Amino acid sequence: MGHTSRIPHPLESLLNPRSIAVVGASSNPNKQGYRYVRHLLDFGFEGKIYPVNHRGGNILGLEVYPSISAIPEPVDYVISTIPAEHVPQLVQDCAHKGVKLLQLYTAQLGETGIPERKQLEVHIADLAHRLGIRLLGPNCMGVYRPEIGLTFRFSSAKASGDVAFISQSAGHAAEMMYRGTLRGLNFSQIVSYGNAVDINETELLEYLAHDPNTKIIAAYIEGVRSRDFPRVLKIAAEHKPVIILKVGRTQAGARAVASHTGSLVGDYVVWKGLMKQCRAIPVESIEELIDTAVAFAKLPRPKGRNVGVIGSGGGGSILAADEFELHGLHVPSLPKQVSNKIKTFLDDDRMIVGNPVDVSMIIPGGWGFEELKRISKTIASHPLYQILIGDAGEWRPDTPSEISDYQAMVSMFLEVRESTKKPMAIVLRPADHAEEWRWRGFIEQQQRCLSKGVAIFPSVSRTARALGKFISYHLTSSA
Amino acid sequence: MGHTSRIPHPLESLLNPRSIAVVGASSNPNKQGYRYVRHLLDFGFEGKIYPVNHRGGNILGLEVYPSISAIPEPVDYVISTIPAEHVPQLVQDCAHKGVKLLQLYTAQLGETGIPERKQLEVHIADLAHRLGIRLLGPNCMGVYRPEIGLTFRFSSAKASGDVAFISQSAGHAAEMMYRGTLRGLNFSQIVSYGNAVDINETELLEYLAHDPNTKIIAAYIEGVRSRDFPRVLKIAAEHKPVIILKVGRTQAGARAVASHTGSLVGDYVVWKGLMKQCRAIPVESIEELIDTAVAFAKLPRPKGRNVGVIGSGGGGSILAADEFELHGLHVPSLPKQVSNKIKTFLDDDRMIVGNPVDVSMIIPGGWGFEELKRISKTIASHPLYQILIGDAGEWRPDTPSEISDYQAMVSMFLEVRESTKKPMAIVLRPADHAEEWRWRGFIEQQQRCLSKGVAIFPSVSRTARALGKFISYHLTSSA
Repeated sequence: MGHTSRIPHPLESLLNPRSIAVVGASSNPNKQGYRYVRHLLDFGFEGKIYPVNHRGGNILGLEVYPSISAIPEPVDYVISTIPAEHVPQLVQDCAHKGVKLLQLYTAQLGETGIPERKQLEVHIADLAHRLGIRLLGPNCMGVYRPEIGLTFRFSSAKASGDVAFISQSAGHAAEMMYRGTLRGLNFSQIVSYGNAVDINETELLEYLAHDPNTKIIAAYIEGVRSRDFPRVLKIAAEHKPVIILKVGRTQAGARAVASHTGSLVGDYVVWKGLMKQCRAIPVESIEELIDTAVAFAKLPRPKGRNVGVIGSGGGGSILAADEFELHGLHVPSLPKQVSNKIKTFLDDDRMIVGNPVDVSMIIPGGWGFEELKRISKTIASHPLYQILIGDAGEWRPDTPSEISDYQAMVSMFLEVRESTKKPMAIVLRPADHAEEWRWRGFIEQQQRCLSKGVAIFPSVSRTARALGKFISYHLTSSA
Repeated sequence: MGHTSRIPHPLESLLNPRSIAVVGASSNPNKQGYRYVRHLLDFGFEGKIYPVNHRGGNILGLEVYPSISAIPEPVDYVISTIPAEHVPQLVQDCAHKGVKLLQLYTAQLGETGIPERKQLEVHIADLAHRLGIRLLGPNCMGVYRPEIGLTFRFSSAKASGDVAFISQSAGHAAEMMYRGTLRGLNFSQIVSYGNAVDINETELLEYLAHDPNTKIIAAYIEGVRSRDFPRVLKIAAEHKPVIILKVGRTQAGARAVASHTGSLVGDYVVWKGLMKQCRAIPVESIEELIDTAVAFAKLPRPKGRNVGVIGSGGGGSILAADEFELHGLHVPSLPKQVSNKIKTFLDDDRMIVGNPVDVSMIIPGGWGFEELKRISKTIASHPLYQILIGDAGEWRPDTPSEISDYQAMVSMFLEVRESTKKPMAIVLRPADHAEEWRWRGFIEQQQRCLSKGVAIFPSVSRTARALGKFISYHLTSSA
């Protein structure tokens, strides 16, 4: 799949438009027809932007065209925010204009369950197919591609990255963009694809498998639309980690799916078997999807499943040991050689240093972060330990000055990470404190870790779950 | 277990001391011997406080006594921060003084695994037993009882409540106190009991079962010390919900336990069977322990397992439906009668309102919170729905002014909760945003819910897990 010899996937040029028309453009900031224009302008879309509305006029300094055909130059990509009943005409207009891709924000079609609406959806899909127009949606937000300044949301992150996310839910697409960015993820693209009457999960997966900018694929799927899915999933997952959140695992979930994108969920047992067979990575919540993507995006390939844990304190270290072992990692005790070396640093024979390192044994015992750093580096650099965890624990500062202890702990982790170059995750609890100084103290350490590209997680359990999937993906054959 | 006829449990008077001596008191703020004195003063301990140190002098305005016997008045309760080798003498001194309870912050005993240290621990325990002194610990922080101003930590919450927590880990005791308080929990007491050479989980459980101020019992247990435990657990769990986090589920966890409190973890399969048989509530992390305690402390007894979910948006509602069903709740669809009534509010036939209520279908459709409130109240007040969830979702404000939408959503939930009086949980994502205005907007809504005694949870998954345990406890017989 090198750059030179590969044949571009048909979606590649479709997702790189040089010009976009927003049909149903509006000057009312509460309407989506305004927002699409605004977001493209704000985000700095590289190509031309043409608002279209039969009323004409001017939106955000751009001339509004009364129709697609009135636009003087070629249009690659059309975003529709108009009511569904006008879409068949729009498809005709797009065909005359030579438009390649029509993205339908337009909804209230198949997902309503109303027979005439389902028929209208089928009619739109058939018409587009006959006229050679590709459809994205209906009932979707569309595409975020920071590289070319394409987005469907305000305040989109400008930086491109190597994670791609495809989602039948617009809300989850936006959530991944927002929460994922807060966790340091950068995206090659996020595609919200809704009811998937034409472009579906299978074609998107096939494209992403070949996309040189995408190294990790994440997906939120309600129902699979193509029989080719197993074959394509297998190929994609052979090349890249494919992390999938599949919903509709229960009857109530399946019912909710039917009224969301009109999808059939299929049997979850069959689904799990397929995931396993293809070596795809199943997750069960958006949080886990983000956590797992963070592990793959931020950590180098591990050499094995032996974890060295620099823990938070007595009880916390025990929970960490349990959690990591239960999720398929090993937490081996310290080799004699390491214990002996550590003993030379300590002036008290009764100090117990193990794996996990119980930090609370060290700090209040009269030692400080420098001693802890020596101990941690000794353990972390031993070849037995192939992956490292720094758990900053449930820090409870009494006064603003105590935040400096938390900073010192994080600094110690960063130094260990830097010196060993091993995959290292850092656990930092959420900064949702009621006092501003506490929030600030905690959020600053999060930002500091993110700026260094560290994989950070909000709890030991979530770290263990994500790393369990990460390790098992990389080490399945050697298990 | 009425107030009038009951015989007080022996621990009751021990945990209500009228005077406390801190042995090993220090004027160095980094020493625990300073901190205990300071915390008792700051927290406003009702009785007398006597710092003890052979050097004498003055600490925080209190006269320091050279020994226990030099204190002119009776001493009920002694906190030891002195090295373990001096504890046998202290036990003798306590016996002469008529001290009832000796709490050993003192550590480096059995948990070190060093034979002579284990022997010293046994010696201390035997001596205390012979001389009629009860021991708490060693290797523990002691007791937090807001009612009498007793604490082991700074900034302790003043309000008493009906949740009790006993913990072999001092860190978890402090974490529960801190994070639990942030979630609106109030405690009758928190007891950190360490190596449990005398007062152990079984006796504490027996006491709490009879304590009229405790309605919910939570416990963190590394190893069980008494053969009576099954019998006592059964009795306790017959009277009150008993939520237990048991660690040492893996070999690495068991090893970490051994060096933490010197406990033997036992077989986790046997443990799980015991929990089930006694109708105790097992949890697997501190987060889940807090979440489950929040459910029991904040929600009235549910009439059944049918949940009405006012969801966050399309994808979010589906995940919610899946999660709640997977954790033993039901998410039944709307009865015809409810659907028909809702249709009369809507001027668009194609709007889909179901359970979960997909909020994103309503808000951008031109309707607002008033319409959503009518819909939500119609569903929430129907007798089919016995428990309610308001999921504020992953709100992503672009500007400070958009925080008002989040406030409106929370207001809507609070109004539905108030009008139906049914058990209702509200899901509010953590306020760990990088910008101050975002953090502030979110944390204010958390505080607002907490001030009204609402059960709030940071994610749908965590809500579902906690409510699953809550519902199954209350409805086991009717399932």
